[in-house]
Amino acid sequence: MAPGVPTKAVYAERIENAQQEMKRQGIDVLLVGPSSDLVYLIGYDAHLSERLNLLIIRQDGTPDLVVPVLESFLATDCEPTVTLRRWEETESPSELAASLIGDTAGVTLGVSDQLWSTFLLKLQNAMPDGDWTSGQPILAHLRVTKDQAELDNLAEVARLTDEAWHEFVESGQLSGLTETQAIERLGGMMEKRGIGLSFGICASGPNAASPHHHTGDRVIEQGDSVIFDWGGRLNGYYSDVTRTVFVGTPTEEYRKVYETVKAANQAAFEAVKPGVPAEEIDKAARDVITKAGYGPAFLHRVGHGLGMDLHEEPYLVGGNTTPLEVGMVFSDEPGIYLEGNLGVRIEDTVVVTETGAKRLNEATRELTVMD
Amino acid sequence: MAPGVPTKAVYAERIENAQQEMKRQGIDVLLVGPSSDLVYLIGYDAHLSERLNLLIIRQDGTPDLVVPVLESFLATDCEPTVTLRRWEETESPSELAASLIGDTAGVTLGVSDQLWSTFLLKLQNAMPDGDWTSGQPILAHLRVTKDQAELDNLAEVARLTDEAWHEFVESGQLSGLTETQAIERLGGMMEKRGIGLSFGICASGPNAASPHHHTGDRVIEQGDSVIFDWGGRLNGYYSDVTRTVFVGTPTEEYRKVYETVKAANQAAFEAVKPGVPAEEIDKAARDVITKAGYGPAFLHRVGHGLGMDLHEEPYLVGGNTTPLEVGMVFSDEPGIYLEGNLGVRIEDTVVVTETGAKRLNEATRELTVMD
Repeated sequence: MAPGVPTKAVYAERIENAQQEMKRQGIDVLLVGPSSDLVYLIGYDAHLSERLNLLIIRQDGTPDLVVPVLESFLATDCEPTVTLRRWEETESPSELAASLIGDTAGVTLGVSDQLWSTFLLKLQNAMPDGDWTSGQPILAHLRVTKDQAELDNLAEVARLTDEAWHEFVESGQLSGLTETQAIERLGGMMEKRGIGLSFGICASGPNAASPHHHTGDRVIEQGDSVIFDWGGRLNGYYSDVTRTVFVGTPTEEYRKVYETVKAANQAAFEAVKPGVPAEEIDKAARDVITKAGYGPAFLHRVGHGLGMDLHEEPYLVGGNTTPLEVGMVFSDEPGIYLEGNLGVRIEDTVVVTETGAKRLNEATRELTVMD
Repeated sequence: MAPGVPTKAVYAERIENAQQEMKRQGIDVLLVGPSSDLVYLIGYDAHLSERLNLLIIRQDGTPDLVVPVLESFLATDCEPTVTLRRWEETESPSELAASLIGDTAGVTLGVSDQLWSTFLLKLQNAMPDGDWTSGQPILAHLRVTKDQAELDNLAEVARLTDEAWHEFVESGQLSGLTETQAIERLGGMMEKRGIGLSFGICASGPNAASPHHHTGDRVIEQGDSVIFDWGGRLNGYYSDVTRTVFVGTPTEEYRKVYETVKAANQAAFEAVKPGVPAEEIDKAARDVITKAGYGPAFLHRVGHGLGMDLHEEPYLVGGNTTPLEVGMVFSDEPGIYLEGNLGVRIEDTVVVTETGAKRLNEATRELTVMD
């Protein structure tokens, strides 16, 4: 069966799970704005703007969905899982939310991460007695382990992304293209497979030493290391892959850096199994890079969760002792960045299994040369 | 001279203007996250993610820019207008911000609208003594009237968008296309002019009665009203135009609705001049529509400010008594929506001038028929 989108029953179950977790964590009301959290819970891809859309979940009963009247036509599919509460242009949606929630003395309200501050401040003003906190521990609890349908979507979008990469590597000369032209070529191969290019970094030569480089007009030339970090989306689930190629004959330095990053990627992968603290995966990669003498040049954590957000829990970073669980999905992406010179990063998507881990990407990790 | 991007001197002046306005409004510290606010102030198009980027402006002195170390390479262009404050992956950026801000007893902190709640809650926890409020009155004061370079960008992107529409109307048969195919055709004409399709709604037949319809697979057919609401971007400034066409021979009802919306658009335009309260523009359009018997079918305000955000101040809505000022730019977009039947909206971008108003769009507003 092809991976698809959830049924109403799945959304109803997710709301129930949220309510159970709210009881366990002592959150009385959960407030969720436009975000993948909202799509995950009720399938409503709300317009993100200055007009408030807000899902209000209590520990029991049917949630309310506060919607601008002109967008309410888009939300009717969510009934009867939620009750629509429409607001007119001249009304205050935060006052409407406050009236639906009622007395907030002694009430703990959890807020979804990506709700804009403008809304949080207005809600806090409308409900000054409430105890305001992050709703993230509820939402992360629900979303951090993926069900089979989610894993199927993530596996399929990763497979199609690998396919696009295979086509790209064989697509001809890289030198002479600008970074923008190179990423557009790769993007076309993603479009062709129906998953689009949700984001794409091409960082060449010295630019490859800036991990989140803004792809630009630099012309790729012989002797460059070139990092491609890109992904697409299938049914709301992301792929996120990085591959680094060398243009021309690799230098000894590049070979050493490349093989070190590849070994670090493998070490992190091999460290993954249920029960291991998230930070241990970071350490496994970092130890390899430090031992090779490049410790300070590994500028970032080794990975982040991946699903309906490009970055989500679990974060594989020093200090995060959360134990890995079966069904967690995250990136494994060590890198070495030598300022003014070169950069190498290799990134796969990994899922935690009963016995250890499985990679969802299998595009070659061997040292790759392009013209 | 072609419209361009600001120089360092412009950014330095904007920071100074912000600081003056902070003194006037009694905001001690202004906190600005990734958003067009940040781009406007310092030209830094920060990556929007779970890693905090935060501009800290005090009433005097050089602002601090808190940046993740792996993104700091992108921000070095902002020096010396700001001082970069890098945080490592295992550090807490909200603690870093708190240490830079110092004692917050009796200190009022204003927060930019689009900062995610996850960051605001962490900042509030790190600085519990502070008095937290919206920073929007500062930012809106700076951004609501446009300077000449901004007006040039807005005029040019509007002109190119009109051109794309002229080409589209002559581009052949609409019936038989899906909404998605139709908007892609128009999008190609925007791409060709270098302004892209930043957003695009195509809403056909009964879907045209949903103002923020999600463009989909419905096949456009004879007898449909079809709303196109779309825009592109030039140097960070948006166009935002709506035109409605009829496929085939217009019905009497459609003609009446169309001419009513057109008259309402004109009435709103003619009401614009410096000093007039924003809500009066809404009323001018609404009166026309109400008199024609369609009052309840005009589901939204008549307009919103336009600039580096697609929706920004001033909002032309009942209850907003802000007087219009020379250099304000906003949409004029009345609409009538008859559920299950049809919809019509006509939208132009309007700038307030010394003597009244000028439209930046001149794509025909006459009743337009396509095959």
